[in-house]
Amino acid sequence: MMGATGDDPGMPVPAFKLKANANSRVLTGHPWVFANEVEAPLPADCDGEVVECRDRAGRFLGSGICNGRSQIVWRRLSREHVALDEAYLSSALNRALSRRSPGEFRRLVWSESDDLPGVVADQYGDTVVVQIQTLAMERRSALIGDLIEGLLHPAEIVFRNDAPIRRLEGLPQEIHTRSGRPWDPRWVSIDGFGVWLDLMGGQKTGFYLDQRSQYARVAKYCAGKRVLDAFCNQGSFGIHASKAGATEVLGLDSAVEAVEAARRNAERNGVKATFEVANVFDWLNDPANKPGPRWDVVILDPPPFAKSKSALEGALRGYKEINLRAMQRLAPGGILATYTCSYHMQDAELRSVLAGAAADAKRRVRILEFCHQPPDHPVLVSMPESEYLRGYILSVE
Amino acid sequence: MMGATGDDPGMPVPAFKLKANANSRVLTGHPWVFANEVEAPLPADCDGEVVECRDRAGRFLGSGICNGRSQIVWRRLSREHVALDEAYLSSALNRALSRRSPGEFRRLVWSESDDLPGVVADQYGDTVVVQIQTLAMERRSALIGDLIEGLLHPAEIVFRNDAPIRRLEGLPQEIHTRSGRPWDPRWVSIDGFGVWLDLMGGQKTGFYLDQRSQYARVAKYCAGKRVLDAFCNQGSFGIHASKAGATEVLGLDSAVEAVEAARRNAERNGVKATFEVANVFDWLNDPANKPGPRWDVVILDPPPFAKSKSALEGALRGYKEINLRAMQRLAPGGILATYTCSYHMQDAELRSVLAGAAADAKRRVRILEFCHQPPDHPVLVSMPESEYLRGYILSVE
Repeated sequence: MMGATGDDPGMPVPAFKLKANANSRVLTGHPWVFANEVEAPLPADCDGEVVECRDRAGRFLGSGICNGRSQIVWRRLSREHVALDEAYLSSALNRALSRRSPGEFRRLVWSESDDLPGVVADQYGDTVVVQIQTLAMERRSALIGDLIEGLLHPAEIVFRNDAPIRRLEGLPQEIHTRSGRPWDPRWVSIDGFGVWLDLMGGQKTGFYLDQRSQYARVAKYCAGKRVLDAFCNQGSFGIHASKAGATEVLGLDSAVEAVEAARRNAERNGVKATFEVANVFDWLNDPANKPGPRWDVVILDPPPFAKSKSALEGALRGYKEINLRAMQRLAPGGILATYTCSYHMQDAELRSVLAGAAADAKRRVRILEFCHQPPDHPVLVSMPESEYLRGYILSVE
Repeated sequence: MMGATGDDPGMPVPAFKLKANANSRVLTGHPWVFANEVEAPLPADCDGEVVECRDRAGRFLGSGICNGRSQIVWRRLSREHVALDEAYLSSALNRALSRRSPGEFRRLVWSESDDLPGVVADQYGDTVVVQIQTLAMERRSALIGDLIEGLLHPAEIVFRNDAPIRRLEGLPQEIHTRSGRPWDPRWVSIDGFGVWLDLMGGQKTGFYLDQRSQYARVAKYCAGKRVLDAFCNQGSFGIHASKAGATEVLGLDSAVEAVEAARRNAERNGVKATFEVANVFDWLNDPANKPGPRWDVVILDPPPFAKSKSALEGALRGYKEINLRAMQRLAPGGILATYTCSYHMQDAELRSVLAGAAADAKRRVRILEFCHQPPDHPVLVSMPESEYLRGYILSVE
């Protein structure tokens, strides 16, 4: 095997074979190959470069990027022979943009779903935030920045390369801007609401774009209602609920900075909502905390309890516990908006949790709305991992 | 056990116990009990009446309706002690209506989802079509008709009691109207389209209300496109597509009457669309039938292939076959709108079928829209059988 970059059409592209008997999902269309599925370890000089995947019989399965340091040693770019050069990146970025609706706040590029494994880009007004999560894309990140600059002309590109997942690829944790100047935190208006953005300092990319459409969706049930937002983060659900006419809004979050951000956002938007630092599990179990069916709307949008498959069992107990407590605290006919944002928590698991909670609470629970990832986070049917967000708006009689 | 009707508060209500060790789903909130789950056969004089369900230890699990002739011997009405009298029916009908948005064409009542097991009611303009599917509701069908009359004042109520499922409850096949007069087939306007309704003679209730919102949803992808509607029934998808600017519409259906209805509907609406009698499997496999990637939009809304769990394996092959053929015949970037309407075909199965078809077709397939039952067909979280309809609008690159 040769350590070619794949950028020179004259050079043969290195290839690896799948192990015999490996039950590789790549054989049925999945874009990943795991370390234990390859016949022999890949030479280190292929890391970060394009390598071809072949089945046991030598049949070409696709061109992809390689990193022997990761458990995911290969990620498909294409079922065709391709190089990871400017032409490929430019074409993939253009196709990604063509999939998006116009807007000021949106995900522009989402990794495998946009044929750019390890590249995530979000637009926040005149700024683009890029997260690089694979070695091959890290090596080309300046080029990716240049191409995004040429396509969208943002005022700034923030490289937010501090996701823990980068460690799995042997990449350092760092945050910088394309210009080299710091990005000053500021107020922006998203869907008519003032939001404090701190793109170099905030959690994740500062504001969760993936739940944005849910705020208005839940708010339409909140006029004249008492609303509990149990994992409030920066307060978006509660602030939308309050603006929609909720008579009472209480948001809880275990993170002091989240509660401070929520209070600041509420004040900026002139809404009355209370935000408190609390562990939701403890709070819901404490009989002193407004027990009985006193809420009309409860929102559960927790962080991912199940970050790995092995953590799923405990996570299922956690999800059931909060959903049961929420149902018990809802007045008859109340609304429960409940979400999960972990790939490991698939729809069958979430349904089972909700059915169990409904049975224990002895409540008749109907689905009013099915909630999914927004279209700017496209799901690949061949890659279940590309779907991590789901939820339901439920009527709890 | 006594054969009381449960309507007289002075009479003790008969009860049955669950078998020890029966893994009854009713213990975890499901509303059904099966024949093999009860300790002793229920006396025949309870059939069609209210009976209480108790667990092995004698704890009350709910009031429900009983029919020892059915495999489903008990269907819960309530977790409380209730009689199936005018007060119960009136309250349940009122609650069902309160869950519906206003409209002229809609499902009004949907069986267990509306606490009325075996009662289905659909509104078609000034007419209500009622389907009765349990013995207990059959005995009270005149009262149900009176209550619907009092609530909605329809010009007519058609009792469409010819569903094969009635045989499982020992009920005859019959169609009649509340007035005793025949209901004349007629043109109605649904969402701005003329539709020929034959409520006493058509398939099911003459027009599929459950997919109504999908017609416009798919049509928005059809402007300037070549559209194949492979299971066209009365042509609604194709007619909406044509009105939305499709350059070519071909609808296929194996039923001559469906194709005739589709042609009549197309003519009435002044749209150009071709409808042909064809077996879709044969047609898609026949190389003479416009092979290659020549379609821009393909719609697959087949009848339920899996009417029972035992039929699922064959059904999975059938679904995969048609989805694979559809993907192969789509031009790059084409749209596949694919649905299933069988409870046995759950989301995990449908996803697996689509992933397999995408792999075999070597196409990159992204989910653009998630499609579910409309809100007037509510899903109970404790009853998976209440969800039978699902689909995806896919981009096939």
